[in-house]
Amino acid sequence: MYNISKSVYVNSVNIIKMRGLMINKKMHLLGRERSVIREIFEYGRKRKSEIGENAVFDFSLGNPSVPAPAEVNREIRRLLDTERDTVLHGYTSAAGAPEVREAIANYITSKHCFKTSSDFIYITVGAAAALTSTLTAITNEGDEVIVIAPYFPEYKVFIERCGAKTVSVMADCDFQPDIAAIENAINEKTAAIIINSPNNPTGAVITEEKIKALADMLTKKSREIGHTVYLVADEPYRELAYGVSVPYIPCYYKNTIVCYSYSKSLSLPGERIGYVAVSPEADYARDVYLAILGAGRALGYVCAPSLMQRILPALMGASADVELYNQNRILLYNALTNMGYTAVKPDGAFYMFVKSPSGDAGELCERAKRHELLIVPSDSFGCGGYARISYCVAREEIERALPAFAALAESYGLKGRKND
Amino acid sequence: MYNISKSVYVNSVNIIKMRGLMINKKMHLLGRERSVIREIFEYGRKRKSEIGENAVFDFSLGNPSVPAPAEVNREIRRLLDTERDTVLHGYTSAAGAPEVREAIANYITSKHCFKTSSDFIYITVGAAAALTSTLTAITNEGDEVIVIAPYFPEYKVFIERCGAKTVSVMADCDFQPDIAAIENAINEKTAAIIINSPNNPTGAVITEEKIKALADMLTKKSREIGHTVYLVADEPYRELAYGVSVPYIPCYYKNTIVCYSYSKSLSLPGERIGYVAVSPEADYARDVYLAILGAGRALGYVCAPSLMQRILPALMGASADVELYNQNRILLYNALTNMGYTAVKPDGAFYMFVKSPSGDAGELCERAKRHELLIVPSDSFGCGGYARISYCVAREEIERALPAFAALAESYGLKGRKND
Repeated sequence: MYNISKSVYVNSVNIIKMRGLMINKKMHLLGRERSVIREIFEYGRKRKSEIGENAVFDFSLGNPSVPAPAEVNREIRRLLDTERDTVLHGYTSAAGAPEVREAIANYITSKHCFKTSSDFIYITVGAAAALTSTLTAITNEGDEVIVIAPYFPEYKVFIERCGAKTVSVMADCDFQPDIAAIENAINEKTAAIIINSPNNPTGAVITEEKIKALADMLTKKSREIGHTVYLVADEPYRELAYGVSVPYIPCYYKNTIVCYSYSKSLSLPGERIGYVAVSPEADYARDVYLAILGAGRALGYVCAPSLMQRILPALMGASADVELYNQNRILLYNALTNMGYTAVKPDGAFYMFVKSPSGDAGELCERAKRHELLIVPSDSFGCGGYARISYCVAREEIERALPAFAALAESYGLKGRKND
Repeated sequence: MYNISKSVYVNSVNIIKMRGLMINKKMHLLGRERSVIREIFEYGRKRKSEIGENAVFDFSLGNPSVPAPAEVNREIRRLLDTERDTVLHGYTSAAGAPEVREAIANYITSKHCFKTSSDFIYITVGAAAALTSTLTAITNEGDEVIVIAPYFPEYKVFIERCGAKTVSVMADCDFQPDIAAIENAINEKTAAIIINSPNNPTGAVITEEKIKALADMLTKKSREIGHTVYLVADEPYRELAYGVSVPYIPCYYKNTIVCYSYSKSLSLPGERIGYVAVSPEADYARDVYLAILGAGRALGYVCAPSLMQRILPALMGASADVELYNQNRILLYNALTNMGYTAVKPDGAFYMFVKSPSGDAGELCERAKRHELLIVPSDSFGCGGYARISYCVAREEIERALPAFAALAESYGLKGRKND
């Protein structure tokens, strides 16, 4: 059974005192208690072994279901055929192979009309490493980092490991940043704000209007508190947007640090490849960049995996087949709303946020489990009342699950519309 | 010009106070000041562009010169041909793919007659990640970690990032651990000791006799201070030993955590793949293991690169051609000692430690530079009076460099033997 209400560090005081053991209790707890999402996934694995693979509908994990574009393996093979082994598998510079950083910088410049250079690109072991290196670099013990709820739960883990404090500010009712609420939360301890667009878990894409308002407010507040508040833009889902444009944040707020990952765009989540791009226009841009490199070094990131670095120049702008996710999105959204559910229509990523008819996220997810539907309560993302459905699965899995969603709706007495 | 005397954090107080900047000064310094080794390497690159590739003899970096065994690329190709993309490049469990952990555990059990299981193996993004995860897990703010000088300089960076203190204890004159000196350094704050055999920078392999004495002393001292002192065995060079056996530490001291890397044994340093193996016999072994997993999570290590994980089961026991390093070792050792240098004959790794005729490490390295020889002063490794020569280069490079070493010897008036 997964316990839906537990939070990351909440039990740390309750750990049994172990005589003669000096290990770090926070780390012990983080290792002992899996994330809620992992917990549900593991429950699903067990349940599938009991009642059959196809009888359980697991919408818990954000693991891409669309294969990597064919160019990925083609490029790996080409490199194996043509590149010297000691180069291909050898150390690169800590910041990444110069020609790869160059390719990334050029791509950003051409794609987003935003001039940058390889001197501000740091190739990382995925977006998580980009985030931990950035947060380690731009915070000191006791600082505060603002996150906008609902948010990816690991943010809290990453922030607190730095000795900083997570300050959670609820999004507005459209799941856009609530500028006034963020302004209220900023004080002289505020080091940074993490934003995530397209968003996990809601699929919301932050509008240009909101970004402009956020930028204006941050510029004003930074002056007021006497130091720069950096915007950390966590963008693993940038390429997964459905008919809307995803504004490039550094074009609007110069003090932006982009944390990017190829995990979802190239369907390579296990290969751990991404980057940090510090805006060259940011205050003390070079120092911030160097501090992030230094943090990466101190955290043990010697370089990003070399083979995966070297395939990137040939893959700029390549993408897994996003249309498959889009079809899932439309199928699921139409079906659920026709059944009477209230859902946020996602503009990006591969998650759908569905309102709990009872108002209680945990109650919805527990009841869904009785119908063999595995979805994640929104409490894990720092807000109540919803569940996250990951639709990065095979289309047939959604189709097979629809009767279970219908039965669940019926159990709440939701009034469906005729689907025509 | 590289500055040979600077240490990692020494200038942190001198950083210009930057108005309006709240970044972490330690991280800034770590990013701004490259390691001495990197600094020498970069100098070499510049110098080569000035006077020609073959006119500079760069023995600074520990970058394997022997290509990966053919099985590596063969296995990558086989997996590309046979495995589903979403599995091959997909997330694995945080601890690593179960079947890969199983293969590693079985290999350890069969190779070292030491029974372990996959439940105690954590596949990591190289040995550096293994070390940072382990140190983060087993230390708390203010703890002490003992290192044995000369030691790999990043140990200090990793330890201090945890808020712990590096306590350096000199090795004895044979570059073996000085048991009495280590015993003296242990107190109630001591959390762990890092040992590294075969050693970087000396090439020394710790003898079975010394390990037994160390184990006895640690068992006694742990009892005395009321908590377990863990031994962290950093073993990236385990497979690179020349005619001597490298004792497997957990067989002698149960409270051992092995940090292993495939970087050198498979010549894959850029791919970042290694593991932590907690001895199942260790005190609170399961808790220590979970804390290391938790630390990996908090540091941003989602999983080790998946393709590289998956090639491992087919490569257990495979190794790059160590005989090529051995030939370099013999060539260089005989040549240098014949010229009158005093050198430590390395039993493992691919480094040779040469005594400075003037007694000053920096002076030797500066003078060597005038002969276009790039070697690393031992001060960087926490002890004076020596220089490290990395002989993981092409044999011809050593041959071409010998006249320069001879001229350098002559400048000191060293008395050579006739080479017959």
